[in-house]
Amino acid sequence: MKANHIDDSLTLHTDLYQINMAETYWEDQIHNRKAVFDLYFRKMPFGNGFAVFAGLEKVIEYLNGFRFSKTDIDYLREQGYQEGFLDYLKELRFTGNLRSMQEGELVFGNEPILRVESTLAEAQLIETAILNIINYQTLIATKAARMKQVTGNDILMEFGSRRAQEMDAAIWGARASYIGGFDATSNVRAGKLFGIPVAGTHAHSFVQAYQDEYTAFHKYAKTHKNCTFLVDTYDTLKSGVPTAIKVAQELGDTIEFNGIRIDSGDLAYLSKEARKMLDDAGFTKTRIVASNDLDEQTILNLKQEGAKIDSWGVGTKLITAFDQPALGAVYKLVAIENENGELEDTIKISSSPEKVSTPGKKRVYRIIDKKDQKSEGDYITLEHEKPNEEESLHMFHPVHTYISKMVTQFEARELHKDIYQNGNLVYELPPLKDIQQFVKENLILLWDEYKRPLNPEEYPVDLSPKCWENKMEKIKQVRKKVESL
Amino acid sequence: MKANHIDDSLTLHTDLYQINMAETYWEDQIHNRKAVFDLYFRKMPFGNGFAVFAGLEKVIEYLNGFRFSKTDIDYLREQGYQEGFLDYLKELRFTGNLRSMQEGELVFGNEPILRVESTLAEAQLIETAILNIINYQTLIATKAARMKQVTGNDILMEFGSRRAQEMDAAIWGARASYIGGFDATSNVRAGKLFGIPVAGTHAHSFVQAYQDEYTAFHKYAKTHKNCTFLVDTYDTLKSGVPTAIKVAQELGDTIEFNGIRIDSGDLAYLSKEARKMLDDAGFTKTRIVASNDLDEQTILNLKQEGAKIDSWGVGTKLITAFDQPALGAVYKLVAIENENGELEDTIKISSSPEKVSTPGKKRVYRIIDKKDQKSEGDYITLEHEKPNEEESLHMFHPVHTYISKMVTQFEARELHKDIYQNGNLVYELPPLKDIQQFVKENLILLWDEYKRPLNPEEYPVDLSPKCWENKMEKIKQVRKKVESL
Repeated sequence: MKANHIDDSLTLHTDLYQINMAETYWEDQIHNRKAVFDLYFRKMPFGNGFAVFAGLEKVIEYLNGFRFSKTDIDYLREQGYQEGFLDYLKELRFTGNLRSMQEGELVFGNEPILRVESTLAEAQLIETAILNIINYQTLIATKAARMKQVTGNDILMEFGSRRAQEMDAAIWGARASYIGGFDATSNVRAGKLFGIPVAGTHAHSFVQAYQDEYTAFHKYAKTHKNCTFLVDTYDTLKSGVPTAIKVAQELGDTIEFNGIRIDSGDLAYLSKEARKMLDDAGFTKTRIVASNDLDEQTILNLKQEGAKIDSWGVGTKLITAFDQPALGAVYKLVAIENENGELEDTIKISSSPEKVSTPGKKRVYRIIDKKDQKSEGDYITLEHEKPNEEESLHMFHPVHTYISKMVTQFEARELHKDIYQNGNLVYELPPLKDIQQFVKENLILLWDEYKRPLNPEEYPVDLSPKCWENKMEKIKQVRKKVESL
Repeated sequence: MKANHIDDSLTLHTDLYQINMAETYWEDQIHNRKAVFDLYFRKMPFGNGFAVFAGLEKVIEYLNGFRFSKTDIDYLREQGYQEGFLDYLKELRFTGNLRSMQEGELVFGNEPILRVESTLAEAQLIETAILNIINYQTLIATKAARMKQVTGNDILMEFGSRRAQEMDAAIWGARASYIGGFDATSNVRAGKLFGIPVAGTHAHSFVQAYQDEYTAFHKYAKTHKNCTFLVDTYDTLKSGVPTAIKVAQELGDTIEFNGIRIDSGDLAYLSKEARKMLDDAGFTKTRIVASNDLDEQTILNLKQEGAKIDSWGVGTKLITAFDQPALGAVYKLVAIENENGELEDTIKISSSPEKVSTPGKKRVYRIIDKKDQKSEGDYITLEHEKPNEEESLHMFHPVHTYISKMVTQFEARELHKDIYQNGNLVYELPPLKDIQQFVKENLILLWDEYKRPLNPEEYPVDLSPKCWENKMEKIKQVRKKVESL
């Protein structure tokens, strides 16, 4: 059972059951029936008040390359799939429609981030990869945005590569962090591929290699005129900071003494003491960079304690989303073509009310109050509805329906864009910088109570009356059927 | 800042500071000095009594491909690195020695898993990628082995792709799970690349597509004669299980009714009831597969409650190592060539005693008692020592030295193999199946008290007297130096 096929395609990056189902659909000749799937998560990650959508660029890269390679087919043949089915797979391309939020859009529980409308077989085969991509990237963009909420205008740097869950996570996590508001990454490959600014100075091993901080800093400054010195290899306040100051004084105008970095010990105390030492020596603009197992709670506490830190290097806790390392986005069938060629809405029932899916092709609108330019909530309608901006809108909670409000003078901004139409890419990916900016603009629309890192208010995601009634009707139908068994 | 370089190399998958340091070393002409780095972690993941090393295959793939591509160099030029340095990088290959444990070896805190002996610049440039790979794969192999400890001979299947942290984690996590004792994965690409058995049946959407369990099961069984039916789309006991039995009875000998899968609800209660229904219908060999947010604690509790589950599908909690999503392996300089061409041991001091590195080139031995064929602990020596198997061995705790024992009649099994010598790969990767078997054999050497999932005994990792004295001497030297500042 030695590895016997090369890695020349991502098309088999799917769960086996997708292939098994596709084979049955093909044999039953229903593989080309139209099916509609919604992708969404139910619970807000980290208990945050909003999530930041990321992953679309990679989804597009994946769908553009979606075809079974010769080795894919060879492998499936070894697994015993029938030749006729393999012939069908050989020719398969993504031929459907994809509508999606844009990267950097704020997204909330139970609203479709993305909708696939394609043949039943195609739509199933792409499920696993799309969830894999979006679950991770959205999680990290959201975690990064939480950190950005507590750091304001401080500089945030992603330093997590060595602790990331394998290589893709390191680079796509760096990109997602940038979308969420980070300023730079240490991963050079991520810099090369995505144009993210890269940051980094030197390691403890550098000082060890010279066995002496004074020599090490001098050597480093000679090659890197804009320099930040790591000051905690031996003893931060007794040795590291004084040596950094001494070297900077000796080199004077020939270098830019940008900063010192502290990577261990009590960051609040050490940064305050180091700040005094730097200021006393006249280096008032030299920044203090801190790292060492930071997350938004630690940063918030350090700031509350008055730590003199200008710049934060965040690793493990960001790149693995340590306190909740998975987002639970799901991909549910909401409509399928029946034998008469009509699209029929479907539902998945569960004993937990929040797990019942919302049937039908739908649209998602953000309802923005025109007076204060703040968002009143999101509003999900059936495909052919559009909230009438001339009238007042009745918004109500989809489970606890007594929670409701009337909204007037609003703008209904549709959140989904056409990405693929009949298998053709019709969307132009924006530059990454613009996506980061888009997050900032989106956050301005939110009231502060949704942005608090701990126990924020729940942002309303409501269904239109028609959408809600359609769901209730479907629930009734399924219950009737089960009870008749 | 749009992405402007293609992804044609993993060589820039490193932290920027590695490149910065390499440039200084090059300018200072010390880049070719020999340096020795140890890779190890300090704290056992999940509080487990052992960890399972994984990642070497990917490390080899990475090192074999270690060269700066044209686009890598172009990108670095844009970042302002000097031409002479770039010329040096263009020609760079890994020319060093790598010694490492084999995949599937049991590994413990504070012992070198892997040792790199190379030029200073090379050894630094490869640090980040190697840590990235080994931290994740070792974490998941260990998590999988924990699950295997509580499931005995039950079947274990890895179902985590959709929740994995991006694509590499899904496939390398599937491989690591297999090493740790899993029987199969749902990820078809992982099956194709690594030869891992693949598993899976059908999804809820399949039943939804047919809008009826009876039809869906019939259709599925027609294409897949060895069939497992998912029975919880509508109502497990009222609808799913009776329908599965009915379809199996109708199809009789034409199919192999392998199993039913339950993916929601109270798995203990549902499995016990389903078992009775299956047995009453004569399907005593039909297996019950359970999934839904399982981990080793949930499985242990379900088994204790007498759940009738034969086969476990584990997703999120395994593939993300949910309760501890990062292993903290580090890579520390332990020796460096001085200006006289001699290798000099180095140390990294910390105020936390467990964070002080152990200087010098070292070897790691597993001390196996010849009488009972159980391991007495691991024993780290300096490079040219070897425990004398003819004499008795004094083993003592490296921090709490009063904890000690004498061992006689032992075998000292060296754990590191030569992987690269002077840049040449000299190691043949074993088949994956053999790596899984190697874990099983290694676990037989361990006393049960080290294998308990909760609060196991701490396995001894001791230093030889010479190695310990060398460390104490280095600590003294550094302290003296810092105090003289």
